[in-house]
Amino acid sequence: MRTYLDCLPCFLRQALEAARLATPDENIHRKVLNRGMVVLSEASLTSPPPETARLVYRAIKEATACGDPYRELKLKYNRIAKGMYPRLKELVARAEDPLLAAARIAIAGNIIDFGVGSDFDLEGALSEAMASEFAIDDYSRFRESLAGTKKVLYLGDNAGEIVFDKVLIEVLGKNGRHITYGVKGQPVINDCTLADARFVEMDKFAQVISDGSDTPGTILKLCSPEFVAAYRGADMVICKGQGNYETLSLAKDRSIYFLLKVKCPVIARDLGVSIGGIVLKKG
Amino acid sequence: MRTYLDCLPCFLRQALEAARLATPDENIHRKVLNRGMVVLSEASLTSPPPETARLVYRAIKEATACGDPYRELKLKYNRIAKGMYPRLKELVARAEDPLLAAARIAIAGNIIDFGVGSDFDLEGALSEAMASEFAIDDYSRFRESLAGTKKVLYLGDNAGEIVFDKVLIEVLGKNGRHITYGVKGQPVINDCTLADARFVEMDKFAQVISDGSDTPGTILKLCSPEFVAAYRGADMVICKGQGNYETLSLAKDRSIYFLLKVKCPVIARDLGVSIGGIVLKKG
Repeated sequence: MRTYLDCLPCFLRQALEAARLATPDENIHRKVLNRGMVVLSEASLTSPPPETARLVYRAIKEATACGDPYRELKLKYNRIAKGMYPRLKELVARAEDPLLAAARIAIAGNIIDFGVGSDFDLEGALSEAMASEFAIDDYSRFRESLAGTKKVLYLGDNAGEIVFDKVLIEVLGKNGRHITYGVKGQPVINDCTLADARFVEMDKFAQVISDGSDTPGTILKLCSPEFVAAYRGADMVICKGQGNYETLSLAKDRSIYFLLKVKCPVIARDLGVSIGGIVLKKG
Repeated sequence: MRTYLDCLPCFLRQALEAARLATPDENIHRKVLNRGMVVLSEASLTSPPPETARLVYRAIKEATACGDPYRELKLKYNRIAKGMYPRLKELVARAEDPLLAAARIAIAGNIIDFGVGSDFDLEGALSEAMASEFAIDDYSRFRESLAGTKKVLYLGDNAGEIVFDKVLIEVLGKNGRHITYGVKGQPVINDCTLADARFVEMDKFAQVISDGSDTPGTILKLCSPEFVAAYRGADMVICKGQGNYETLSLAKDRSIYFLLKVKCPVIARDLGVSIGGIVLKKG
């Protein structure tokens, strides 16, 4: 998906939010905004938004001298989500269709997204995702494709959300299917990294790999050769969240599925759905 | 009120909205954003936000070669509001306290504000303003001050809303009180100008004067000497809307009242009220 001009003011708002997490010093906040505006003035509109977001967040890190403004919040949401884990497992265990229940849970977790805002109703998102109709529903095809799939690459999105992903990964991993869970190489927004995967013990159910990048999405030219090899070698790629949709929506070379909750008007328009919609879409 | 850093991304969003009204050419939209970001990089945080907004809207006019992007929308809302006028008059005629009813109506009209967004529920705002409690209620003092007031300067805000103002001005003008209605010298956002005042026949009930400025608010150093004289000569100043609050909230030299509907988080914080609140506040 290309970058729309609407993304520019939104990036600036995000930059301010991240700067405030990094330091209380308003002079530094101003410096972050001014550096961010230089990045935005030069941003390419033909690239997907995360390509620019990456440069904005690099400017934030530089100006604040803080490598990970969302560190505390990521830990907080990992803990909250971990506390919900037994209940999420129970929902799957009781479900008529455990795969569907687990997919719905994974999508619910996608409400935790500090790129969009900081006011989440995680319980509300869970109830809604368990009961609502999908705004885009390719679940039958997803289920069918999965039957013949041996190697799944699952691209994670955010900390906290990773616990919700784990519930789906446990279901996907049955029948000896090999699951690889991809995380960011460096901190960016609240995207999950190796540290988050370790914290939630993702490695019990999947091989965890870093994509070697600090892009809040997946841009292969910016990823490590090891990650690109894992991507090329997978029978199916499951992409969580808006950033992975923005960067891989045009990938036509493989079986790819997008699981997300729509939180931004630009993506809503691109997908042709309303904000708040839950999406399981074949690429 | 000072400018907060939150205002900067918001100005950029407004610039894009105005640019889209002025032209469908995306290259020009981009030029507007880039010029806007130069203005924002240099903006003073000690000035009230409308002082920067004025410069941003000047950049929009230059880059789009359109002197009045909101022209059509202003006309549209003037017409809608004019259609509601008999009903608004009826509400006042039936009211136990006509001054209070007219003040509530004037505040309801303040929902029409393209600096904030473009999706108004005017009917909803009217029902709400007639029935809700004020978030800040200095009505008794307003009523008392008015008793001894001969000359009122009423600073208008937006097109469309001006019809709602007229309803209050008709009540204020009783007992031979002299009312002056201040409008902008040049178009800026959807703020009302002499053309709007003529369209709604404001001159039947008030002396209409231009402030000689293109500031979406009232900054005396940027106003014409005639306007400053009218301001200094008034016994009471009534200020409509956020822009006039932002620019005159610290004016302590006169009897001044602010009538507005709170639509922005920064102003909500400054006033200590919630978004959506209706305010009648003594300065």
